[in-house]
Amino acid sequence: MSEIDLVTDTAWLSADLLETVRAQMPIVYVEAIPVRVDALGNVTRIGLLLRVGADGSIGRLVVSGRVKFGERIRDSLMRHCEKDLGPLALPRIPVNPAPFTVAEYFPSPEVSGFHDPRQHAVSLAYVVPVDGECEPTQEALDLSWFTPAEAISPAVMGQMTGGQDRLLRLALAHVGQLA
Amino acid sequence: MSEIDLVTDTAWLSADLLETVRAQMPIVYVEAIPVRVDALGNVTRIGLLLRVGADGSIGRLVVSGRVKFGERIRDSLMRHCEKDLGPLALPRIPVNPAPFTVAEYFPSPEVSGFHDPRQHAVSLAYVVPVDGECEPTQEALDLSWFTPAEAISPAVMGQMTGGQDRLLRLALAHVGQLA
Amino acid sequence: MSEIDLVTDTAWLSADLLETVRAQMPIVYVEAIPVRVDALGNVTRIGLLLRVGADGSIGRLVVSGRVKFGERIRDSLMRHCEKDLGPLALPRIPVNPAPFTVAEYFPSPEVSGFHDPRQHAVSLAYVVPVDGECEPTQEALDLSWFTPAEAISPAVMGQMTGGQDRLLRLALAHVGQLA
Amino acid sequence: MSEIDLVTDTAWLSADLLETVRAQMPIVYVEAIPVRVDALGNVTRIGLLLRVGADGSIGRLVVSGRVKFGERIRDSLMRHCEKDLGPLALPRIPVNPAPFTVAEYFPSPEVSGFHDPRQHAVSLAYVVPVDGECEPTQEALDLSWFTPAEAISPAVMGQMTGGQDRLLRLALAHVGQLA
Repeated sequence: MSEIDLVTDTAWLSADLLETVRAQMPIVYVEAIPVRVDALGNVTRIGLLLRVGADGSIGRLVVSGRVKFGERIRDSLMRHCEKDLGPLALPRIPVNPAPFTVAEYFPSPEVSGFHDPRQHAVSLAYVVPVDGECEPTQEALDLSWFTPAEAISPAVMGQMTGGQDRLLRLALAHVGQLA
Repeated sequence: MSEIDLVTDTAWLSADLLETVRAQMPIVYVEAIPVRVDALGNVTRIGLLLRVGADGSIGRLVVSGRVKFGERIRDSLMRHCEKDLGPLALPRIPVNPAPFTVAEYFPSPEVSGFHDPRQHAVSLAYVVPVDGECEPTQEALDLSWFTPAEAISPAVMGQMTGGQDRLLRLALAHVGQLA
Repeated sequence: MSEIDLVTDTAWLSADLLETVRAQMPIVYVEAIPVRVDALGNVTRIGLLLRVGADGSIGRLVVSGRVKFGERIRDSLMRHCEKDLGPLALPRIPVNPAPFTVAEYFPSPEVSGFHDPRQHAVSLAYVVPVDGECEPTQEALDLSWFTPAEAISPAVMGQMTGGQDRLLRLALAHVGQLA
Repeated sequence: MSEIDLVTDTAWLSADLLETVRAQMPIVYVEAIPVRVDALGNVTRIGLLLRVGADGSIGRLVVSGRVKFGERIRDSLMRHCEKDLGPLALPRIPVNPAPFTVAEYFPSPEVSGFHDPRQHAVSLAYVVPVDGECEPTQEALDLSWFTPAEAISPAVMGQMTGGQDRLLRLALAHVGQLA
């Protein structure tokens, strides 16, 4: 999950309080797996961001971020897609408000297979087709598009941490593209 | 459900055999509820076709039709959307192959609440956002766009038969727009 | 939504901090619509709790409550079902972790149609078949089972507030039982 | 997919007509992945049947069969579960009528990844928890229960044909159990 929101959200929640809350409450997140689709709705490419993590290692990850107080899920998905993919990405937010899965990130890696050392995050995950021009923004070094077969290859999966490799497999299954 | 496919499909299945089969096998259908969405994925309008039924009455209905032998569900959805909404409708076929519901139409109205005097149809139903210009084609007299509130009004619902009023309510619930 | 968790949860989050957090962060909730099903999975009854609200009025509501820090969604669903339905209810927690819808409760009634004056709650909603003996516990006065037709009658819907009448309709649509 | 229904269904559709229809129409199927669940709804075991195929090879497969004329999906799921798992299996047919995925089987293996040399089958797939005693019936040699990890091992997956290995992965993803 992204640290970017920690920076951009300080205006609305003090860093101190955030730390206190994170130690005592689950935090609501959204995650978007950006995809390219053909005219028939088949997923042809999955977009993954490249970032330098807190430990200096480079990793690939999907769009993610916190839901703000007073913010609709749809608005939050749009905000984080624009934050990570740029203002011209034209994300197609799904019509169905239900996520395809809920990823439960815990400080301990053993609980659920999803792991976030900072917090307990309850993350609503969506597959989001994007039609427009995407460019990595803010802290991302790169945005690359992979075919479903490439995305689940060890080379790519090996760069995903915290269980996002698993989230990606669940997303591909949801769209019927898990070989 | 539409009679149009009966006409256009005679090339690939003789009318005689179709009648025989319809009396003995469930037939696979797809149904698409065409919608307009805003930038956040909220459904703002539902498209309903106006047609003269077999008994001369006028009714409103959604896009529907049979799945052909050898045809993928996605291709069938696209074919029927183009057939009913015109070639410029630009339907967005969903990425998830699972329908939001399965409508089971039976010759007897009591079995399921979905009724088709001609056949037992197992219909996979999808909500399909359309971005382009739509125009009624073939046998349809008109295509009208209704807000969710208008669509579930007695005036509109009263023009839908065979359980399609119910299908429309299920679709609105699926997109979180059932008041 | 229930006030009960406010009492039972004070051990793990001080009331003061809870108030502070509630004014600045969305809170993760689960909601369960308890149902009786027949052997074929058809929903035959919906269970609704009867409670005295903060303003002294009597209302009907579904099972709901907060997700604790470190708690899995499944565990939270089970805990709240046992809290509201008693220890012998034998709830069948769904195998799919994705909720059938997400109800977004806001302090302002206009935002989403779901309203909670205390907080912004992001509520993951599930239909939960229960096989065992249920009895209202804690603050509930009663637990009644309604047929789908009774549940959406004005007499019952009129006793539901905050948008839970709408949540119930979405649940009935999800199980194909919205007439 | 099973050949058993070919035998048991001859009463309601002549073998000749079935062959004719199979060459010209998609056939409606249901498939059930039988699972054992713990009290929290976690899938702990997947049940797979062992059968001798038409070519003499031994394969593992899930519960499947045709939907009859006039038969509800729920009834068909129940009938095929009883046929393959025995009368004491106590299958829990899901409350939601929508399948978790649609498997499209084609005579040609290249079309969709799902393959049935006999026919084009549109198969509605469900995960079905079973509580009772299961015993293989009719043509099945055995029924074995595998953990999710065992089920996706090459040893087990290698015994599944026609794309049912893929269907099993999609089912495990649906229940959040795909590692």
